[in-house]
Amino acid sequence: MATLKHREILLYSDTARSADALYFGKVEVPDAFVAMSARGQKVAVVSALEFGRVKRSSDFDLVLPLEGYVEKARRAWPGKKAGPARVIALAAKELKVRMLTVPEDFPAGLYKELCDLGLRISISEGPLFPQREIKTSAEALALREGNRCSAAGIAAAERLLRESKVKGRRLFYKGSILTSERLRVAIETACIEAGSVSNGTIVAGGDQACDPHNRGSGPIHAHELVIVDVFPRVSATGFHGDMTRTFLRGRANDAQKRIVAAVRDAQLAALSTIRAGVHANEVHRRVSETLVSHGFETRHSASGSVGFFHGTGHGLGLEVHEPPRMNAHSDYPLKKGSVVTVEPGLYYPGIGACRIEDVVQVTGASPRMLSSYPYHWELG
Amino acid sequence: MATLKHREILLYSDTARSADALYFGKVEVPDAFVAMSARGQKVAVVSALEFGRVKRSSDFDLVLPLEGYVEKARRAWPGKKAGPARVIALAAKELKVRMLTVPEDFPAGLYKELCDLGLRISISEGPLFPQREIKTSAEALALREGNRCSAAGIAAAERLLRESKVKGRRLFYKGSILTSERLRVAIETACIEAGSVSNGTIVAGGDQACDPHNRGSGPIHAHELVIVDVFPRVSATGFHGDMTRTFLRGRANDAQKRIVAAVRDAQLAALSTIRAGVHANEVHRRVSETLVSHGFETRHSASGSVGFFHGTGHGLGLEVHEPPRMNAHSDYPLKKGSVVTVEPGLYYPGIGACRIEDVVQVTGASPRMLSSYPYHWELG
Repeated sequence: MATLKHREILLYSDTARSADALYFGKVEVPDAFVAMSARGQKVAVVSALEFGRVKRSSDFDLVLPLEGYVEKARRAWPGKKAGPARVIALAAKELKVRMLTVPEDFPAGLYKELCDLGLRISISEGPLFPQREIKTSAEALALREGNRCSAAGIAAAERLLRESKVKGRRLFYKGSILTSERLRVAIETACIEAGSVSNGTIVAGGDQACDPHNRGSGPIHAHELVIVDVFPRVSATGFHGDMTRTFLRGRANDAQKRIVAAVRDAQLAALSTIRAGVHANEVHRRVSETLVSHGFETRHSASGSVGFFHGTGHGLGLEVHEPPRMNAHSDYPLKKGSVVTVEPGLYYPGIGACRIEDVVQVTGASPRMLSSYPYHWELG
Repeated sequence: MATLKHREILLYSDTARSADALYFGKVEVPDAFVAMSARGQKVAVVSALEFGRVKRSSDFDLVLPLEGYVEKARRAWPGKKAGPARVIALAAKELKVRMLTVPEDFPAGLYKELCDLGLRISISEGPLFPQREIKTSAEALALREGNRCSAAGIAAAERLLRESKVKGRRLFYKGSILTSERLRVAIETACIEAGSVSNGTIVAGGDQACDPHNRGSGPIHAHELVIVDVFPRVSATGFHGDMTRTFLRGRANDAQKRIVAAVRDAQLAALSTIRAGVHANEVHRRVSETLVSHGFETRHSASGSVGFFHGTGHGLGLEVHEPPRMNAHSDYPLKKGSVVTVEPGLYYPGIGACRIEDVVQVTGASPRMLSSYPYHWELG
């Protein structure tokens, strides 16, 4: 236990790539930088470009100037590259840190260089900060805010779908054929106005939506299911929203109605199962069984899969996908305070696809909803 | 040479974090996945969530189903974690690949697991794909498009600044105090309408701008220099723009005028120096000397730096910051076809800050401009 308690950590990344670095220092740094702990202090080594800002507004107790350490490295190892490995070696020596733990996604090149320089580096098994999984009330609030942004985006898409004119299979918005691209502009603009940036927004109709990660392109047709999945990052906090709704402008046929009803029913089954202590794969099993009970089978073939072939959900926080996962292999108990998405889906080329996604926080009883948007979907 | 020629590569990342993975497979994959080469073939191992899409629209010659390999791993190593390391080990064996080269930023945890499984893994020294530095004409066009998006964002900011009313030191846009946040919404909306997503947009006025990576917050004042730095990612290609302009609404004083004139002069000095074969640090030296010749010294202190204390520029492509760097330590020749930013700046708390940034492609003669926006800055 003593070792664990006094474990010193080392990070080397920018905060866009490493949520751990953002979590640790509570400041955005757009270029890779050294962050470490030393006897209870948080230490950063940053360039002049970041120095004043990190010193003034971050969680770091000690901010060291990169340029100074590069100079020292040049003097200590004449003719050698004064890169991050030697900067880290010097800083660790000054700070009297003898062993450092790095995250699994620490850069392998730097890991090897540090080992070659004689540093004792241990790679974390599992998350470097397991406490990131359990969201504080402030973090839950930030996630709720993320989903407020998602909802603003989804509302913008619904508005355009409603305001479009149906002519046969085609949809016209303000005289132009309505496309995934046009809907995406409306969604992303709404997210920005709500205080977030939405990358990778999915607006996919018809068979395109049967590839769950197809972002969608070209005309959106009437009488077809349209998946709208919006996962923006709140600029002020770095936390995300992640919501999906499926719409249909025009008239739904029976197959489409059955798909949407089954997915919503499966989501409700998950929501009634999620609770601290329940195993994540049990939630997934309930979802799969509900879909099967509605008559929807999952099949795999050489050309792809149909039915329900992704996990029920994933943790949400500073990353869009983070622990815990809820899929068939997730044989571990959900923890109080974890925040997960609940997003069953069905995908059948020729009929279409539906996914409905909300975000909840695990409690000792019914989960706490952190997202809110109506479930109507037929926009006659 | 034979070894280098037949070098097989291995990647494990999502394409948002790894530009190498996007460059290699020419398809966006939002979760970490296995990509490797095997005797001239590009191979991906992806989940059912991605399978159909990657099979249909990517550069991968062979797309293998992750679920199948996870099953095989379970059978081959009963009771052990059927994670990416064992999936890679199985795939490499089937493909008869005996040694794999990974990029420097390959995850250290996975690197160590692969070594422990007996695979021969070599870490690339320097970029995995050095050819990424030299931009083809299609890539240069994509970067020009990125800067068209940047320019759309900057134009939106200029428009709001011009349309604001000056009352003493304050600026009012449509009756409300003009803020960094309001300008950022206008910029990011314009980027979205132009087909890109802008993360990390900088709109910083007065002393805030003296921290080059401060994004800016709160009121933007009249008679103060405002740095607007926009580096969006074009959604269709993944390539970026990166442009900066500095504006001032109201009346500039002499110190502000001198700063802006010096920065623009330094930028022109860089542009007249950049050419294939010239060393990158020579370009930086010319910029520094030009600023000094205008009377602007650089000083470092415990509280931070003033003057010019960042590099002159950096490579631009699928990443906002990529090789080559142009700073005091960049002792290597610029190559024909490289694309770099040229962005001198001056930062003096109490007076303000200015940075002017454009993007050029290196040629055998004068560099080719890949960005375009006027240089007027006093918006009386």
